[in-house]
Amino acid sequence: MTTNKQVLLASRPQGEATTANFRIVDTAVPALADGQVLVRHHYLSLDPYMRGRMNEGKSYAQPQPLDEVMIGGTAGEVVESRSASFKPGDRVVGMGGWQQYAVVNASQSGALRKVDDSQVPLSAYLGAVGMPGVTGWYGLMKICEPKEGETVVVSAASGAVGSVVGQLAKTRGCRAVGLAGGPEKCNYVVDELGFDACVDYKRYPDLKSLGTALKDACPNGIDGYFENVGGLILDAVMLRMNAFGRMAFCGMISGYNGEPIPMTYPQIILQSRLKLQGFIVSEHMDVWPQALKELGTLVASGKLKYRETIAQGIESAPEAFLGLLKGKNFGKQLVKMI
Amino acid sequence: MTTNKQVLLASRPQGEATTANFRIVDTAVPALADGQVLVRHHYLSLDPYMRGRMNEGKSYAQPQPLDEVMIGGTAGEVVESRSASFKPGDRVVGMGGWQQYAVVNASQSGALRKVDDSQVPLSAYLGAVGMPGVTGWYGLMKICEPKEGETVVVSAASGAVGSVVGQLAKTRGCRAVGLAGGPEKCNYVVDELGFDACVDYKRYPDLKSLGTALKDACPNGIDGYFENVGGLILDAVMLRMNAFGRMAFCGMISGYNGEPIPMTYPQIILQSRLKLQGFIVSEHMDVWPQALKELGTLVASGKLKYRETIAQGIESAPEAFLGLLKGKNFGKQLVKMI
Repeated sequence: MTTNKQVLLASRPQGEATTANFRIVDTAVPALADGQVLVRHHYLSLDPYMRGRMNEGKSYAQPQPLDEVMIGGTAGEVVESRSASFKPGDRVVGMGGWQQYAVVNASQSGALRKVDDSQVPLSAYLGAVGMPGVTGWYGLMKICEPKEGETVVVSAASGAVGSVVGQLAKTRGCRAVGLAGGPEKCNYVVDELGFDACVDYKRYPDLKSLGTALKDACPNGIDGYFENVGGLILDAVMLRMNAFGRMAFCGMISGYNGEPIPMTYPQIILQSRLKLQGFIVSEHMDVWPQALKELGTLVASGKLKYRETIAQGIESAPEAFLGLLKGKNFGKQLVKMI
Repeated sequence: MTTNKQVLLASRPQGEATTANFRIVDTAVPALADGQVLVRHHYLSLDPYMRGRMNEGKSYAQPQPLDEVMIGGTAGEVVESRSASFKPGDRVVGMGGWQQYAVVNASQSGALRKVDDSQVPLSAYLGAVGMPGVTGWYGLMKICEPKEGETVVVSAASGAVGSVVGQLAKTRGCRAVGLAGGPEKCNYVVDELGFDACVDYKRYPDLKSLGTALKDACPNGIDGYFENVGGLILDAVMLRMNAFGRMAFCGMISGYNGEPIPMTYPQIILQSRLKLQGFIVSEHMDVWPQALKELGTLVASGKLKYRETIAQGIESAPEAFLGLLKGKNFGKQLVKMI
């Protein structure tokens, strides 16, 4: 009998999430029914959106149910199959959750996707060539609509989404400016990812100094902004937006624990005739093939770079996730299980 | 010699505007040069945007210069012409400013537009069939994009812009809900303009009670919102927006005096995947012919109703304008000069 170690949501956070909100259990992998596939996970993706799911109440998605396996994207291999569509050894990505194995109904559309790991590493299908990459692609291309010569700013710039946004903006002939926390991340964003500038928001804890730093980094103002953070950073960026600027709202990690994060100057929306738009990439499946094709080609050719922070073993997932929420990771946060 | 009474901006407001910010002067109407037309104003339009122009500093428009005639839309008649395009007696609209007469270079594109006052009253070209009407038309049609069966909400619903928004939304098969101050305005919005409901925001001074009132008025949530006010009303509406809702930012009158008007829950932009867009109607001249045609037809056939508050004499303009900023007017605020 194969044991499947799983991480369940044990309780909902009161304010900041802690390891006590999770519970690790061992269960037996069940026998497969017809049409089912057993996937052994190599990697679990940890993403900020999961924090929102841990809360009860109105969000864009159903809350993560208590006492069930935490939701999450996974990459692995088929180890047993009772489906004609998959055979043992196939590399696959899906939403297997925080566990070592998943039983998947292979016939369910989109539940499992075969991938080729000869050109693109398997883990990248959870990052630059997966949901985070498409998230960056969608928000940039469909909401920010970058034009050559414009300035695009992205917060959490060294992260899985932000790193894609800035590098894609460069391919469109834009000035790409990041916001990241600490000199190490900022240097990486400029030196390795090729952004034109990166503002270390930790050095500028108030609106005035952050605004000045942004002004220096964006001498022609800001035309497109990709929002992952909210709060003070959002205020500072809004004050530097050019007329007819576009702002893609992808995440507001600074409010995940329930803190108020007011937008101080909504009148700028009018004064600068801005467009602000929120989106969730899973609601735009029509663009995934186009986006994944471009992202895969860029990664395979070495033109789209990314970094990973890898935690070892499924038991480490809660701690790694809490670190992600505090920005302790560097690039895409993964859990490796094999 | 004909005397031209003018209202100049004497000083910039510190906080709330007062009559001391204006100065009334008598000047002589100059002789016309070739290509010029002398217009005698019948009506001056007073609009909230003028308050923004009185401030110095960054806004979407140039500040109103000190010691010059206040900017403003006007409707009147040609009394003297040295242009082949206009003859005495022609009814015209333009941006003649706060004065009894204006000398206009007729060749300047868009400076003066001939109108027909046989079907549509002259004053309506400053309201429902003028800039305010096109403003409502643009924000509703191009940003809110109403679909049959959806719910559209508009603040300042009895005003020149808001009244057009709701009545147009009805022509598109929407539920139209207004926000207005006081029972008289609310009754007018429902009984005369044909909105489905109107919330008296003065009865609900906090987020919770205003939210409950909006919920009652919008049982299916809100799909499109036309923003004229900002502040508490904006917060309450955002909390009731449906997924993929559209919000047109036309004005934020509650912040004109420099008060902070933060948006309390910007995370709703993401959670409900909203689109927020600011606009200024003068930047979308391409839609004016289409919009004016629809608005003119609706007014001529009695299907688009409006109300006017008329102050008599150019000297009354400052007082009437300050009243407008406090919501003392009912419908379109005009100054009648003849």
